[in-house]
Amino acid sequence: MPLNFQQVILTLQQFWAERGCLLWQPYYTQVGAGTMNPATFLRVLGPEPWNVAYVEPSIRPDDGRYGENPNRFQQHYQFQVILKPDPGNPQEIYLDSLKAIGIDPRQHDIRFVEDNWEQPAISAWGLGWEVWLDGQEITQFTYFQQVGGVALDPVAVELTYGLERILIGLHNVKDAWSLPWTDSITYGEVRRQEEFEHSKYYYEVGDVPAMREVFETFMHEAEASLANGLVVPAHDYLLKCNHTFNILDARGAVGVTERQGYFRRMREIARRVGEAYLEQRKALEYPLLKEERGEEKEVKGEKIEARTPHPSHLSTSPFLLEIGVEELPSADVDTALSQLRERVPSLLKELSLEHGPVKIEGTPRRLVVSVADLSPNQPDREDLVKGPPADKAFDKDGIALPAALGFAKKNNVNTRDLVIREDAQAGGKYVFAIVKQKGRPTLEVLAEALPRLVESIKFEKSMRWLPASRRAGNESGVAFSRPIRWLVALLGETVIPFEYAGVVSGNVTRGLRPYDSPEIVVSSADQYFEVIREAGIVLDKEERKASIVEQVNQAATLVGGQAIIDDGLLNEVTNLVEMPTAVMGGFDKESLSLPRDVLISVMKKHQRYFPITNYQSSNSPTPQLLPYFIAIRNGDDIGIDLVRQGNEHVLGARFADANFFVREDLKQPLEAYRPGLSKLIFQTRLGSMLDKSERMDKLVNHLIPILGLENDETIFARRAVHLAKADLVTQMVMEMTSLQGIIGREYALRSGEQKDVAEAIGEQYQPVPKSKVGVAVALTDRIDSLAGLFAAGLAPTGAKDPFALRRAAIGVVQPLIEHDISFDLREAVKKSAKIQPIEVKEDVQNQVLDFITGRLRVVLNEAGYRYDVVDAVLVEQSDNPARAAEAVKQLQAWVEREDWDTILPGYARCVRIIRSASVDGKTLKVSTKKFVEEEEKKLYDALQKNVKSQPGNVDDFLNIVVKLIPSINAFFDKVLVMADDQAVRENRLGLVSQIAGLARGLADLSKLEGF
Amino acid sequence: MPLNFQQVILTLQQFWAERGCLLWQPYYTQVGAGTMNPATFLRVLGPEPWNVAYVEPSIRPDDGRYGENPNRFQQHYQFQVILKPDPGNPQEIYLDSLKAIGIDPRQHDIRFVEDNWEQPAISAWGLGWEVWLDGQEITQFTYFQQVGGVALDPVAVELTYGLERILIGLHNVKDAWSLPWTDSITYGEVRRQEEFEHSKYYYEVGDVPAMREVFETFMHEAEASLANGLVVPAHDYLLKCNHTFNILDARGAVGVTERQGYFRRMREIARRVGEAYLEQRKALEYPLLKEERGEEKEVKGEKIEARTPHPSHLSTSPFLLEIGVEELPSADVDTALSQLRERVPSLLKELSLEHGPVKIEGTPRRLVVSVADLSPNQPDREDLVKGPPADKAFDKDGIALPAALGFAKKNNVNTRDLVIREDAQAGGKYVFAIVKQKGRPTLEVLAEALPRLVESIKFEKSMRWLPASRRAGNESGVAFSRPIRWLVALLGETVIPFEYAGVVSGNVTRGLRPYDSPEIVVSSADQYFEVIREAGIVLDKEERKASIVEQVNQAATLVGGQAIIDDGLLNEVTNLVEMPTAVMGGFDKESLSLPRDVLISVMKKHQRYFPITNYQSSNSPTPQLLPYFIAIRNGDDIGIDLVRQGNEHVLGARFADANFFVREDLKQPLEAYRPGLSKLIFQTRLGSMLDKSERMDKLVNHLIPILGLENDETIFARRAVHLAKADLVTQMVMEMTSLQGIIGREYALRSGEQKDVAEAIGEQYQPVPKSKVGVAVALTDRIDSLAGLFAAGLAPTGAKDPFALRRAAIGVVQPLIEHDISFDLREAVKKSAKIQPIEVKEDVQNQVLDFITGRLRVVLNEAGYRYDVVDAVLVEQSDNPARAAEAVKQLQAWVEREDWDTILPGYARCVRIIRSASVDGKTLKVSTKKFVEEEEKKLYDALQKNVKSQPGNVDDFLNIVVKLIPSINAFFDKVLVMADDQAVRENRLGLVSQIAGLARGLADLSKLEGF
Repeated sequence: MPLNFQQVILTLQQFWAERGCLLWQPYYTQVGAGTMNPATFLRVLGPEPWNVAYVEPSIRPDDGRYGENPNRFQQHYQFQVILKPDPGNPQEIYLDSLKAIGIDPRQHDIRFVEDNWEQPAISAWGLGWEVWLDGQEITQFTYFQQVGGVALDPVAVELTYGLERILIGLHNVKDAWSLPWTDSITYGEVRRQEEFEHSKYYYEVGDVPAMREVFETFMHEAEASLANGLVVPAHDYLLKCNHTFNILDARGAVGVTERQGYFRRMREIARRVGEAYLEQRKALEYPLLKEERGEEKEVKGEKIEARTPHPSHLSTSPFLLEIGVEELPSADVDTALSQLRERVPSLLKELSLEHGPVKIEGTPRRLVVSVADLSPNQPDREDLVKGPPADKAFDKDGIALPAALGFAKKNNVNTRDLVIREDAQAGGKYVFAIVKQKGRPTLEVLAEALPRLVESIKFEKSMRWLPASRRAGNESGVAFSRPIRWLVALLGETVIPFEYAGVVSGNVTRGLRPYDSPEIVVSSADQYFEVIREAGIVLDKEERKASIVEQVNQAATLVGGQAIIDDGLLNEVTNLVEMPTAVMGGFDKESLSLPRDVLISVMKKHQRYFPITNYQSSNSPTPQLLPYFIAIRNGDDIGIDLVRQGNEHVLGARFADANFFVREDLKQPLEAYRPGLSKLIFQTRLGSMLDKSERMDKLVNHLIPILGLENDETIFARRAVHLAKADLVTQMVMEMTSLQGIIGREYALRSGEQKDVAEAIGEQYQPVPKSKVGVAVALTDRIDSLAGLFAAGLAPTGAKDPFALRRAAIGVVQPLIEHDISFDLREAVKKSAKIQPIEVKEDVQNQVLDFITGRLRVVLNEAGYRYDVVDAVLVEQSDNPARAAEAVKQLQAWVEREDWDTILPGYARCVRIIRSASVDGKTLKVSTKKFVEEEEKKLYDALQKNVKSQPGNVDDFLNIVVKLIPSINAFFDKVLVMADDQAVRENRLGLVSQIAGLARGLADLSKLEGF
Repeated sequence: MPLNFQQVILTLQQFWAERGCLLWQPYYTQVGAGTMNPATFLRVLGPEPWNVAYVEPSIRPDDGRYGENPNRFQQHYQFQVILKPDPGNPQEIYLDSLKAIGIDPRQHDIRFVEDNWEQPAISAWGLGWEVWLDGQEITQFTYFQQVGGVALDPVAVELTYGLERILIGLHNVKDAWSLPWTDSITYGEVRRQEEFEHSKYYYEVGDVPAMREVFETFMHEAEASLANGLVVPAHDYLLKCNHTFNILDARGAVGVTERQGYFRRMREIARRVGEAYLEQRKALEYPLLKEERGEEKEVKGEKIEARTPHPSHLSTSPFLLEIGVEELPSADVDTALSQLRERVPSLLKELSLEHGPVKIEGTPRRLVVSVADLSPNQPDREDLVKGPPADKAFDKDGIALPAALGFAKKNNVNTRDLVIREDAQAGGKYVFAIVKQKGRPTLEVLAEALPRLVESIKFEKSMRWLPASRRAGNESGVAFSRPIRWLVALLGETVIPFEYAGVVSGNVTRGLRPYDSPEIVVSSADQYFEVIREAGIVLDKEERKASIVEQVNQAATLVGGQAIIDDGLLNEVTNLVEMPTAVMGGFDKESLSLPRDVLISVMKKHQRYFPITNYQSSNSPTPQLLPYFIAIRNGDDIGIDLVRQGNEHVLGARFADANFFVREDLKQPLEAYRPGLSKLIFQTRLGSMLDKSERMDKLVNHLIPILGLENDETIFARRAVHLAKADLVTQMVMEMTSLQGIIGREYALRSGEQKDVAEAIGEQYQPVPKSKVGVAVALTDRIDSLAGLFAAGLAPTGAKDPFALRRAAIGVVQPLIEHDISFDLREAVKKSAKIQPIEVKEDVQNQVLDFITGRLRVVLNEAGYRYDVVDAVLVEQSDNPARAAEAVKQLQAWVEREDWDTILPGYARCVRIIRSASVDGKTLKVSTKKFVEEEEKKLYDALQKNVKSQPGNVDDFLNIVVKLIPSINAFFDKVLVMADDQAVRENRLGLVSQIAGLARGLADLSKLEGF
């Protein structure tokens, strides 16, 4: 009989108390997580050690499901542990704690899945993992890097057990309600009714205006407490603010901008609380530092006896470096491997070490460098070292003067061996010493170089974990994606001795997690791959990937389907395991009635599962999902049934959750949600999402003609715009924001809307909507946002772009280009400006257009067009992206022509003389009567012949120019444009300016290279 | 090494989990006690079983001491246990839990001290104890009777451990701060700084108006939740209201009436929450009743095998009944013993059982009835039973008719044995049967009677505890002061078999608590006293008392002092122990600087200690306290040093607390507190205490002449009245209300006020102030209250007297009588009426006066004066109590004279004829010329001679009457007053009415017996 709920808690308390933790109590005010309890939030700050464990009933109003979901509740029980400083082996202690409560890693699939934890309300972040038990997240494991805006030193390890989920796994049941709290009372009997009640309160009853006021009062009390130096009371009120905010949020009463305001204020208090706490502890002289805790934590297997390095090898040896780490995030595995692949060869070159093939491989727990046939030494070298001028070194008799003696001594050569050579650069003769340098032993060279190699690996996000006491020398800055826990470094059979990040290199590696990460001795570099393979680890990423694909396909075949193997997912999963084993599970057929995208999204994004479809051949329509999934387990197939069941329960719960939302949502048609948009603030000055939606209703009418929509398209576009935002207030989208649009489409269909309307709704967030109606919706949305938010002073600055206006601008440009729709942006922005609730002045409209042009420039550059070509076009035409793109394409083709250097100079002469004569832009009449030279006349005639009207595009323009080039060249060769006679001069300038003006509105060729 | 703080918690969790308790968590919103947690508040309601244990960090803002007090904090840790239903032996299980955490009852003094728990905010009450460990309260042990206004059925046992205090005892340290939380971190290191901060927040920072608003919001949310049937959310908001109220209270912002309003509203919500919960559970069909928990809890030693009663004894036997109970409150021991002393003899008489001496004794744990030489049987009896009339029973020949046959058969006699007798009452002859009734065996009779005897014992407050499953027959109403746990009932060596309150009688008693209440077999009734004495129990209360007095005196002598042995305290202590052992301890000499009354009050009221003074002889002034105290332990002297130290720590902490208040208070003079009275509401319509104080300033000026104060007294009275109420807003009085006045006196002295002023302030709450100035203050206060509160419609009704106006009225009357001050109440009330902020109409003034008269009547009656005498006087004079008392005293003396029956009749004749002639009250002139008879003249002359003026008091009046009696008698003997001649008649009536009128304004003798 597995432990019941309260026994698990007792056992964990006992376990952590025995390991030096102070046992603390749940907090006396509602918190969303144990992290908010001052025993974590405050105590992790500053230099004092702190080890604590406690239960935290955590309240998250918007997780309430009326007691209907099997494992999602507005209150769940966390068991929180803080270890500060990092004890060096927190993962192992944690896994021991799981064993203590009866979870045998051999029988389950336990994985450490990247999780970059962030809590904006308290300005905190950290790196670590979700720990998965058979697909279920059961623990958050975080190395805190910052809390309350303060960087932690030392870093604290936070373990947050999700007790219900652990118990579900332990008892192999379908939901938390049936868990035994004691042996005679279930969890449901204790909690289910109140769960219903709280959900109802948070979603339906809480008084919004009153809660807003209460929030202000609490904020005020927090301020007053801070003003009086009262840290904990201030923190308490911060927590109360937070909970009050959560109620408002659950009631759907907080708009986007408003949310930012709330968070900003809470963050500010959090920061001040943190600072005040630190000051206070400092003033108290850090009482908990009183006794240096004597017992140095032993870090298994890493401390090795100091060895005397073996004598240099005489022959080449294989080299092996294994950096043993706590589970790296998938992307970081790739990053690290690619950096090593680049740096190892260059390092060896730099060190002058000859070598055979280099192999770089890795898994989430180890990064491996292997080099064959590494030279035992650097080669010996002769260097010519320059000394004093020859005449200063030797007298006329060739007797060495003091300068020569000193130089020889310094370079450890005999004066006899000095040579005199001419130095071309400096001029004159100089003394040179030929210094022979003995190549150093590879062992020694690598012992110096390897720490730098490890240090050189950089990650997008890296963390610190070393406590001061374990930092060697100036390692205070040591950072890595996740903590480094062991290092294997072998040259043949010899350990290359070095230390990095408090870890001493050795010859002991670790086996698979599910096998308890046994220590394994690697007797020589040669043996490494054999040893690792025997340990069940598939080191080669491609091999792992191939194995996964094979297993997944095999499994899918069993149910007559085909797996959806998305590259990104496959890559991620490959980097999550060391020994992949596919586990197929099923789910309730009824869940198939959920929108397909919801199902896939949950399986892929949340669970890293491969979905299975009935896809058979390429000509079938959209394949249907089958009620199965494939998970990849880390480990062999012992206990595989338990693992499968566990994963099935998790997915079942997730689908139940989605079902709950969809069922609730579909109680009314999509259109009925639209009025609810009034509760979502778009932006304070621009009103609610409903206001925005109403503006869009108007704007689309203006855009329809500009877009050239016709007939049904017009009707569909109006309807789609009308419904576009309605899904934002459905529960499903509130829960999984990434489904916005997708859910709108789905619900629109289920509400009986036209298919075109539904598709357009679905396409609105895509960078390039597929249908023209979809483009209309997207443009209406994006142009409204740009015009409004610029006017509200919210244009992006630097890295700040909270409303993603850069993406909006690209989203205006790209669809127009790809659908090749000629569209007057200036006109559209002007129309939108008139509809905004605040004034959008003309200069603001111009800012918007410039901003869009900027994005257009990026789009075109990224499409491979030359910068100068893009510039040349955009100077003349930017308000119509499709046309601009066409012009760029054409101009690029011209620029690439072999005869371009005969075309451009001729035209350039025209432009340049006009500009230097400062008549650019003036209208100068050309009169044939004023022609003096033959060439003038000819040029004029050529012009008349070739130009019927102003050219409509770049091709037309340049085709004319090509034809004019001979006449132009002749003209300039013979005719002095700047004649003394003003009338003649102006007539000539007039003629040339007609040619120069051909490019008007198309491109400014003066921007081109070679102009 | 004793367990550290967290180990104690773990151990208690383990202990209670093993005994079937569900382990719960502290609540997520601030509560003042674990009782408020829904795991108690809600779950104790209704029929479902519920056993739970949890820690509760309990928040009580006004217990904050800035971290300066050793064991008083705004947050302390409770460990809460609920056992529902009562398992039958909760005290024993509790004591086992203490052993589990290392508290050996043999080494300590553990006592169960009466505590009638009440929580008005949630409309809850229960009976039980404070459990004392060496004088320190470490646990509250309560049998819940009602929660949220709902009577509990079954009753729940609540144990609330005060963890800090337990740890202090366990570690024998002076304060909580130095307790080990873990083995390396102290309680103080974890909590002291935040304790300071919270204290400061609650006392100085919290925003009062904002908190008032927050209270309203929370109230509103509670209402909304209730309206939606959401029990737990409603309860949560009730708790939040409660905490918000506590903040307001700590800020000193809640007046008396306002407080009542807050409580009323919270109580109302609590009631509705309770009801809603009950309805909900009912609708859910009480899910936790699902399985009848099979294992019947075994109650040790109580279940005895059914026995066949021994054959009736042939000789007399001693009888012994011991009712074994959980610790009775001191007063209930006395109540029970006195009832038994009255009822046992009458019961035996009623049962016709002859017996020897009856002895009734008792301790807190046993009530004992012993009867010597109890007859083995009731005596045989002959009853004469009346049958049908003789003529219907027998025919003329003496043959029995059917009526006689039936009657004989019914009474089981032969028709031959019927006799015929005259029935005087009914008239006529009737048949009688002589029915012989065999006396029943005593064993049988008592087996029936004893349950009724036990049941007949009534207490002021009694409780229920029996769960339904253990109720025999119709015992649902079983109630007692505390649970009955065993019954010893012996007739000689035979157990008298009966069952009461689920307990079966037997021959097994229990020994002393500190010895673990061992079961002891009592082989016969004879042996009982011997057995009990051998067990160390002093059964005889007077013996215990004498032993205490002896030990206390002995101990006091050791430090050269003399103990203050207050009768009430001695009696109480005597009833708290079964084996008294005195323990003397000391306290810090510095504490002696605290006001003497504070010290004594703390020692006597809070700790039940005997203080010690340096009193040597009767002529020394007020004796000084010595820094010692004497506690009475229950048990022998094993571990007595631990017990002493424990008690010293407790007292030290209490004095530290008082010191804290006094030090804070004395930062400003007493007068400076007066403005603060504006924050205390006296009564909504009558304003604040400051308003009252200002009225008193005015009223005293009117009372000074009425009271006849002179010179300095006038000045002192004005000043004393001015300062009288100022101490109400000092912290010391806010903390210990019973010190009002006492603290005012002390602070007045320390503020440099005149001694007379200070004494008067100190005397104001005494029933009879010692000084005349004190009387002035008291009367000013009391008359203002009476006039104002009657006008506000708050006159006492029935048992309701929230403002203690009965006591106020007595407090007006008694000082006047005892100081013999002639005082015109009517005038005083009139003056006060004019000063009130609301109109006090004349009829209200009369009500006040009538009310005071009523109290005066009670006072005089209780002083031993005859009702008729008091009536006679009060009819004529009640507005001047001193004078009335004098009159009563005089009249009583007259009434008691032997010749009174010669005096009264004569005077009565005068009064009666006046009244019957309906001329009572008319003024009839007397003319000597109209006299007809000699006796008229003589009476007239006697009158002229003896009456110079209207007599001023009763003595004067009756001395006159005595002298007139011969003349009066002669007059009535000879003279027909009611003569036909009207002139003569009225002249005679006039003469007689002059005599009758002598009593006017003094007494109405017609009220006297014998008139």
